[in-house]
Amino acid sequence: MNRIITIGREFGSGGREIGKRLAETLKIAYYDSEIVTGIAKKTELAEQYVHQIIEKKPLMFFPITVGKTFYDGVSPLAVEQSNAIYIEQRNIIKEMAEKSDCVIVGRCADDILADMKPLKLFIYSNMESKMERCRQNASVEEKMTDKELEKHILAVDKERARYYQFVTGKKWGERLNYDLCINTSNINPSEAVELILKLLR
Amino acid sequence: MNRIITIGREFGSGGREIGKRLAETLKIAYYDSEIVTGIAKKTELAEQYVHQIIEKKPLMFFPITVGKTFYDGVSPLAVEQSNAIYIEQRNIIKEMAEKSDCVIVGRCADDILADMKPLKLFIYSNMESKMERCRQNASVEEKMTDKELEKHILAVDKERARYYQFVTGKKWGERLNYDLCINTSNINPSEAVELILKLLR
Repeated sequence: MNRIITIGREFGSGGREIGKRLAETLKIAYYDSEIVTGIAKKTELAEQYVHQIIEKKPLMFFPITVGKTFYDGVSPLAVEQSNAIYIEQRNIIKEMAEKSDCVIVGRCADDILADMKPLKLFIYSNMESKMERCRQNASVEEKMTDKELEKHILAVDKERARYYQFVTGKKWGERLNYDLCINTSNINPSEAVELILKLLR
Repeated sequence: MNRIITIGREFGSGGREIGKRLAETLKIAYYDSEIVTGIAKKTELAEQYVHQIIEKKPLMFFPITVGKTFYDGVSPLAVEQSNAIYIEQRNIIKEMAEKSDCVIVGRCADDILADMKPLKLFIYSNMESKMERCRQNASVEEKMTDKELEKHILAVDKERARYYQFVTGKKWGERLNYDLCINTSNINPSEAVELILKLLR
């Protein structure tokens, strides 16, 4: 079975950079937004629309396993498209993980690939360090006030939690969903990667 | 500064055994119930009584930092004794950590020793593996039904959470309080120790 590492992460915790560096060092595949691109191509929907549904505004906020839809004002077509995208995303993630060793950041890969026994990591840090990281890395967040930035960070994670709940029926960030939860408040991405590499050796 | 490793742990997660083995391997001091014994000797209260107050039934369930007491039917003497024990415990933990490198399991050491920058670990696992570990290790728990055992495990952790909240004013098990949270559902104590040792090297 391939070596699969899934990374869940709080916004601003450095999880994405850690995932990229880890994949680079291990010389294995790295996935995150590429998945959405793949889905968009396969389903022939505009990528922007797919991205909106998958990342920001899932149309139904209930576990897919419940097997019941609450249309409630949402058009059946939109619901069908949302379901189609979810199923397609699931297939693509599985396909990629079966193809080769890889690091997958986000996208509920920890749950989707559970059968393949991935190493499931969750990266988190305190608000102060998340804000600092956002200031260093991003262009949009640069212009925000501290208050706006904090609100933005919390909002992104709220959406992630909502989407994780939607896809897996489980609570995002709940420690039992992961093998190891790493606090990056006091370490930089390189140190976190070094730590993960030690575990893999 | 000494190398201090603090371990918070769910009941049945193997955290205590991990702490002991880790200290043995590193050839450094190990503390847990010894602290209580120390406190009992210093305050000249019966150890049983101290143990009851510290572990099971703190008389006041509010953060010490609030600086306000709710006597509410509890005798002032009992409250004073409870406070004295808390302060004594704090002093003893600090004293030991200043004396030599050590592993301290429980007792809110992560918070009490924050200034000494300990490596703060939290060990957790799923209910199934906790029950299995309890069956293997304990004599009291052996005679319980599955239902009784699960209830017992949850009750012990509820008391730990309550005590942690009482002493630190923070939420027990909340990931931001720890550097690393390790899931022992699928690994045994030796493997967990091996993992921690890798991080320390």
